[in-house]
Amino acid sequence: MTGPHTALIALDWGTSSLRAYRMGAAGEILETRSSGAGIQHLPAPGEDGFEAAFEAICGDWLAAAPVPVVAAGMVGSAQGWREVPYLRCPAGPDALAGASLGFETRAGHRVTIAPGLIHDPEGGTPDVMRGEEIQIAGTLAAHPEAARDALIVLPGTHSKWASLRDGQVAGFATYMTGELFAVFRAHSILGRLMPEAAPDAEDWDAFGEGLERARDGALGHALFSVRTLGLTGRIAPEGLADYMSGLLIGHEILAAAEAEGQDRPLYLVGEGELCRRYERALSQLLGRAPAAQPGNPAPAGLFSLAGAAGLLAPEKETSHV
Amino acid sequence: MTGPHTALIALDWGTSSLRAYRMGAAGEILETRSSGAGIQHLPAPGEDGFEAAFEAICGDWLAAAPVPVVAAGMVGSAQGWREVPYLRCPAGPDALAGASLGFETRAGHRVTIAPGLIHDPEGGTPDVMRGEEIQIAGTLAAHPEAARDALIVLPGTHSKWASLRDGQVAGFATYMTGELFAVFRAHSILGRLMPEAAPDAEDWDAFGEGLERARDGALGHALFSVRTLGLTGRIAPEGLADYMSGLLIGHEILAAAEAEGQDRPLYLVGEGELCRRYERALSQLLGRAPAAQPGNPAPAGLFSLAGAAGLLAPEKETSHV
Repeated sequence: MTGPHTALIALDWGTSSLRAYRMGAAGEILETRSSGAGIQHLPAPGEDGFEAAFEAICGDWLAAAPVPVVAAGMVGSAQGWREVPYLRCPAGPDALAGASLGFETRAGHRVTIAPGLIHDPEGGTPDVMRGEEIQIAGTLAAHPEAARDALIVLPGTHSKWASLRDGQVAGFATYMTGELFAVFRAHSILGRLMPEAAPDAEDWDAFGEGLERARDGALGHALFSVRTLGLTGRIAPEGLADYMSGLLIGHEILAAAEAEGQDRPLYLVGEGELCRRYERALSQLLGRAPAAQPGNPAPAGLFSLAGAAGLLAPEKETSHV
Repeated sequence: MTGPHTALIALDWGTSSLRAYRMGAAGEILETRSSGAGIQHLPAPGEDGFEAAFEAICGDWLAAAPVPVVAAGMVGSAQGWREVPYLRCPAGPDALAGASLGFETRAGHRVTIAPGLIHDPEGGTPDVMRGEEIQIAGTLAAHPEAARDALIVLPGTHSKWASLRDGQVAGFATYMTGELFAVFRAHSILGRLMPEAAPDAEDWDAFGEGLERARDGALGHALFSVRTLGLTGRIAPEGLADYMSGLLIGHEILAAAEAEGQDRPLYLVGEGELCRRYERALSQLLGRAPAAQPGNPAPAGLFSLAGAAGLLAPEKETSHV
């Protein structure tokens, strides 16, 4: 199963899932595995849980080929395997590698964990990311032109809008769009009129109406229309979740566009279904299309981190990380 | 217990509670009772539950003095005792009385339920209230000068900003501030760093910082600062809920002031503790103070409804309602 050409094992280790990539010397993915052993769902508490999840997902790969391991995501948080402090923006790929933390597992494998990023502008509030910085690094590996001046948008539970300038992440902003949607649907009056099961197909009309309503302003007021449009029968129960999705995504896109400027090249990174929503929203609200949609750039980002950290070049195997 | 001077029984019957007022001919409150038998917590399902809760809270009053009964709140909703359709804005106190619905209970008591209000502006989304229209009527009874041109603000789970013009409720807007606070605290990542138990005292510094941060704009982004200010230790865990409260109330007040104009007389209606927060917020963000704070105007509103519906004048006891 494991060939002699394995060069790196890369782990994307988040809160709710763990993904492992066995990669070749040119950065190609030779094999992918995933497990539910996110840092909040480990098989045992604390250190034992990390060791066990690690062994389960890539122990045999390492037995066959003892290569370097890099990891990113919540595995480097205060609740992670090792805490790797946030690196301050502006920060580029080399700084990311320099701030990563190497350690040995109990079985003697060397693991290098990437830091998260913190953006802490004067007079503002701080913003943080963990995991997305590696997706950004992967996006830049595939689209080096983005490093000069671009917005990289990573939709999700906590969407990130990263501003790239002069080869560095100059800053970024988090929008809690995905979490707000989930929490309102499950725990607020807004979910009350929605059917229990998600409808089979998207209601793009309702989604588009939600986008349009996002222009009306204050979210705390606009949200109540999810209820009243349902109560008055103007949107069918099956369409209410898509209407709310449009309202929340529209709120995010309009606010981020106002904060970041509308003319910069824009890269949309993430899962297909969610990115389709953002594509529609960008088109309807701003008349814009993304410059590219890099899919899942995490493996490429981890490979790039390993390179910048000197883990891939034989003569640097004993580097500082 | 019940004297011969009882003129009206007034019920403020909401989702989670039922309050009953025995009132005299001049609108004075002779006795107050409350129970947990809101329409979602009735002692039995459906009609039986309403009859039982009604009998329990005021059966003895009616046995002693068979006076008219008026009610307002969710008791008139589709899930209520009788559904009373929403009345469209603009609407004044007389229209409210005209659109109320009278019926007889099984025991033969006549009960008159007030309608809710719907504001459905051209090109906008509809907004609804049930119960607050009676608090507005009570506010106008105590402060008739407000009817000409004022904002009546009712903070709560779903805060209402009602615009009064020429003796009528011209329109209103709902802000989901109270529900957002509760849902984020209990079910989102934002509550994660807050202590389980509410702190003994308000942290007004944290509240004030939240208000200030509300000026930064998009709520979906600003909310994430509840987490990052906690993570970075800039706000202590005990202050995070008050910071979030400030952020949400500030968002409401800034948006409503922008929508409604900042110079109109402003009446703040509701519970003391919550109103104190709104008072601070109005002062800090807009440099404004409320014209008056009418406390709980629901009994006065119900009394006024009864008068407008002709229920209090002996010669009109067989009116249309």
